[in-house]
Amino acid sequence: MAFSEKNLKGLIAATFTPMTSCGAINLPVIQQYVDYLVQKQNVTNIFVNGTTGEGLSLSIQERKSLTEEWVKHARGKMDNVIVHVGCPSIMDSKDLAAHAASCGADAISAVCPSFVKPSSLDALVLYLQEVASAAPSLPFYYYHIPKLTGITYQINDLLGKVKQNIPSFRGVKFSDVNLMEFSLCVHAYKEYDFLYGVDEQLLGALAFGAHGAVGSTYNYLGKITGDLVKAFEDGNIQNARNIQFCIQEFLIYVFDMGWGLPEFKDIMSLFSGIPLGPSRLPLVSSIRSDHHDAIKDRIKKMDSV
Amino acid sequence: MAFSEKNLKGLIAATFTPMTSCGAINLPVIQQYVDYLVQKQNVTNIFVNGTTGEGLSLSIQERKSLTEEWVKHARGKMDNVIVHVGCPSIMDSKDLAAHAASCGADAISAVCPSFVKPSSLDALVLYLQEVASAAPSLPFYYYHIPKLTGITYQINDLLGKVKQNIPSFRGVKFSDVNLMEFSLCVHAYKEYDFLYGVDEQLLGALAFGAHGAVGSTYNYLGKITGDLVKAFEDGNIQNARNIQFCIQEFLIYVFDMGWGLPEFKDIMSLFSGIPLGPSRLPLVSSIRSDHHDAIKDRIKKMDSV
Amino acid sequence: MAFSEKNLKGLIAATFTPMTSCGAINLPVIQQYVDYLVQKQNVTNIFVNGTTGEGLSLSIQERKSLTEEWVKHARGKMDNVIVHVGCPSIMDSKDLAAHAASCGADAISAVCPSFVKPSSLDALVLYLQEVASAAPSLPFYYYHIPKLTGITYQINDLLGKVKQNIPSFRGVKFSDVNLMEFSLCVHAYKEYDFLYGVDEQLLGALAFGAHGAVGSTYNYLGKITGDLVKAFEDGNIQNARNIQFCIQEFLIYVFDMGWGLPEFKDIMSLFSGIPLGPSRLPLVSSIRSDHHDAIKDRIKKMDSV
Amino acid sequence: MAFSEKNLKGLIAATFTPMTSCGAINLPVIQQYVDYLVQKQNVTNIFVNGTTGEGLSLSIQERKSLTEEWVKHARGKMDNVIVHVGCPSIMDSKDLAAHAASCGADAISAVCPSFVKPSSLDALVLYLQEVASAAPSLPFYYYHIPKLTGITYQINDLLGKVKQNIPSFRGVKFSDVNLMEFSLCVHAYKEYDFLYGVDEQLLGALAFGAHGAVGSTYNYLGKITGDLVKAFEDGNIQNARNIQFCIQEFLIYVFDMGWGLPEFKDIMSLFSGIPLGPSRLPLVSSIRSDHHDAIKDRIKKMDSV
Repeated sequence: MAFSEKNLKGLIAATFTPMTSCGAINLPVIQQYVDYLVQKQNVTNIFVNGTTGEGLSLSIQERKSLTEEWVKHARGKMDNVIVHVGCPSIMDSKDLAAHAASCGADAISAVCPSFVKPSSLDALVLYLQEVASAAPSLPFYYYHIPKLTGITYQINDLLGKVKQNIPSFRGVKFSDVNLMEFSLCVHAYKEYDFLYGVDEQLLGALAFGAHGAVGSTYNYLGKITGDLVKAFEDGNIQNARNIQFCIQEFLIYVFDMGWGLPEFKDIMSLFSGIPLGPSRLPLVSSIRSDHHDAIKDRIKKMDSV
Repeated sequence: MAFSEKNLKGLIAATFTPMTSCGAINLPVIQQYVDYLVQKQNVTNIFVNGTTGEGLSLSIQERKSLTEEWVKHARGKMDNVIVHVGCPSIMDSKDLAAHAASCGADAISAVCPSFVKPSSLDALVLYLQEVASAAPSLPFYYYHIPKLTGITYQINDLLGKVKQNIPSFRGVKFSDVNLMEFSLCVHAYKEYDFLYGVDEQLLGALAFGAHGAVGSTYNYLGKITGDLVKAFEDGNIQNARNIQFCIQEFLIYVFDMGWGLPEFKDIMSLFSGIPLGPSRLPLVSSIRSDHHDAIKDRIKKMDSV
Repeated sequence: MAFSEKNLKGLIAATFTPMTSCGAINLPVIQQYVDYLVQKQNVTNIFVNGTTGEGLSLSIQERKSLTEEWVKHARGKMDNVIVHVGCPSIMDSKDLAAHAASCGADAISAVCPSFVKPSSLDALVLYLQEVASAAPSLPFYYYHIPKLTGITYQINDLLGKVKQNIPSFRGVKFSDVNLMEFSLCVHAYKEYDFLYGVDEQLLGALAFGAHGAVGSTYNYLGKITGDLVKAFEDGNIQNARNIQFCIQEFLIYVFDMGWGLPEFKDIMSLFSGIPLGPSRLPLVSSIRSDHHDAIKDRIKKMDSV
Repeated sequence: MAFSEKNLKGLIAATFTPMTSCGAINLPVIQQYVDYLVQKQNVTNIFVNGTTGEGLSLSIQERKSLTEEWVKHARGKMDNVIVHVGCPSIMDSKDLAAHAASCGADAISAVCPSFVKPSSLDALVLYLQEVASAAPSLPFYYYHIPKLTGITYQINDLLGKVKQNIPSFRGVKFSDVNLMEFSLCVHAYKEYDFLYGVDEQLLGALAFGAHGAVGSTYNYLGKITGDLVKAFEDGNIQNARNIQFCIQEFLIYVFDMGWGLPEFKDIMSLFSGIPLGPSRLPLVSSIRSDHHDAIKDRIKKMDSV
């Protein structure tokens, strides 16, 4: 496939990593997961081994096995499998990038190391260039998530430098609330894809021209979010707002409970019926069985919008 | 005027405070300023003595004189004069609130003290209640600007408590990038006005249903921003995006220069021809005369959009 | 008094502002407060109308009345009355500075406005210069409290610029945990006084050569902190540590309760027997009467060290 | 060795990882490095594969090779080799912990994953317990560095929970400026070692009873810092202050240049004559050859103190 002919757009589910009750990865669940996304959520793009997938909590070997399994089952059913290859060690990232290419993944993406932060914007570019070069045939997407990484260089500044140095660069997974920066990128770099990553305010990014969206909620709210995107594209802003508000009401309930990633994983298991197992340490879910009915009720309410 | 019959909406210019070259306030300039806003910018609402107006850098007596002058000249020409009455001392705030009412202002607004932060959300409500009660006939707008104040209570939580305690409460000047919180407020509190305060991403707030916008750029970009709002209302998103991008290109130039409030004041003087004078300490402008042409060029470029 | 011959050192109580139950300032209490500090706490220096004194929550007139009263009662009993004159409005600050001089205060101090932050380090220097110039005969102390103001210029950088521009500059009330910066100042600017403002780690600042300490706990822990300072000066580090630990155990109890300034005011009333009244909005105390015994017990425990 | 009989104290050099010019690890340099630390710096404890050692930028296999080499050459010459085993993946951390035990390391330490942060204080304890259990015979030290990790649970709260759950727990590498928290730990948990990690204000931590110090500057300022510690122990505070100030003057020069880890690595090569090579991406040094003389001069100046 010639990546220059293919653009990433639409909804992309950031997949959870299925685990057994004792914490090992649970590969056999993946086939069911792919079918569920396609059939129940109308979602045909996935972002694997990212933040939602606890990619950094996995060993390199586990990440490779997962990549192989996702690519195998997505083949013929999905449009794109984007593999997150970011690691604290650049050698591991390059290893994963080359592996993703050898497996037939459609694209790769990487977050920059954040415990050891890049020395400068130029050092960040060098880092991304080196990782991308390990899979030169695959479109490369920078994963920008400053709230988690503390790496706050402006993406519009980054893109000017990337353009000349990384031929396979194709866009950004932009997980931040700064929509001015997002808009500046969308307008000034029309050759790239900008995938928005803050699910709870997707409508704002659509207004600025987002090409797609990557997020964990698209695992179980993919269909309703698809309706939101369609309403927006049809010029029916009021309807889009109402759907987004519905989604926000659910999310604010989750946030107000103090919940985060491990609880979202539980919610996905509960909703989809796919047993995804617990999260890996240092994540521990605080959802108890007596929360289940409340969660189901709230998700059901969204369906009737 | 019965405030319950009147809603604030549309563009609201956060006015600069005219000063003489030696730093005293320059009241005679205000009449010209009002005419300019109405005639050149199509802006008929003003927010005076706020952040842009260096309200907190003024003495209580100066703020009163300014309020009187703005109200006097806006009468018959403008729709609303909103007076910012927030002060570190609650007694001063109440004094200013009562004064605004006595002058015939249309509404008041207050930021909460931030050097001494409220002890709790309930303490914040008590504070606002006390200030609003000094001008019970005037619509009261809470001024939310967490990046400057460090006061980060969620506005949707605040509104639940405000509703029962502050009869004159009418809305929020919402100066933050968190559009989920903004959307939750707009949908759940339809009786209030939500005025967005981050000019550089207004389009995002419009998508979520903003009723109006308060900002310093509307002093000189009011007309073009009016075009943006109209394009959005007409369903012409692409046009709205293009205008917003133009505005952002100008603003990123300013931000990348390291400029802020005192430089925006200079830009306004330069653009409008109204001599607004310098800012008051601790603000000092770093615009030099050799920047003037570049600034004028950039603003002119926007006009041709 | 020639300020060049007099140095500020030792413990300085940052006084609370006595209020009546309905929130007016309560001047008659001040005489008793002064006697209590001198006789019970061995504290003979006070810092009035600062953060602890809710200086920014008071009106200009109230601050003047308080200054007059503190100076009057301290005369002949105390060594120094330092008046905090910082205000958001520089004109108010200058007014208060001149008033402090006219009353016979021993020194002034000012925090820089923080809602409207200084444009640059040079703008901060200009601001301080202007305030200090309103009371050229009084020693001037910059009040550095970056956690509250967000003004983070390095003090060692500031001092280089201050030296040539502010003849009455005499030192810094340094309320921050960065002891490297503190040490750099103490060593490089031997002509100035450095008064430490983080009570809970005073011992660390003593190790780096602090000349004095300003804090709210010295209102009721002045005596025991005096013992700490003496133990340190006598080379008895282990004893100093034990006393500091005692104080910390009390403070961590307060912090873990989520308490802050209004609760410290209650604790002071409870401990000293001086009725200081409530704090002013937006501060509300959450101490209830059933907390009183626990608080008293914990303070008593410290006495027996 | 029975860890219960041995305490960690004194200066511990956080070692840099020697690399070749093309970025591979350079094991042969380690023997020379060990001899240099012992003979030139009087430093006989090392902390390997930590932040300074770019531990997280290395592959698991590289970390194992480095551990083996450091342990082999330190044997008989040094007192303690502490191996940092923290990784984003808990399975990798356990693997490294078991490997360190099998090699004969004296202790292990781990930072908690920070891109994926622990869900709660209890989750953090579970994480540490799991890692420690992979090397139950080795003393375990928690590596607390909130500025880099964003994990801000109070260590005194953590220790209460750790005590009952992690038998091999022995202390904390405490890299933070909050000395109240440090002091509370030192006093309340006398069975543990508290190793301070902010080199530029070590004297403050000594005042509160630090047992030891881990840092990158001890690679080249070990001898002079040893003098500082001795001066403090001898009760010669003024001398200790002077030495600390000297060190700070050097460090503020480095910080003001905008330098960080990769530049410190260059400084160490320059000073020690040991060729440590470049840092690994995303770190890039900005020291140029024309800086060399200035650096050497500044380090030399310290020697004459």
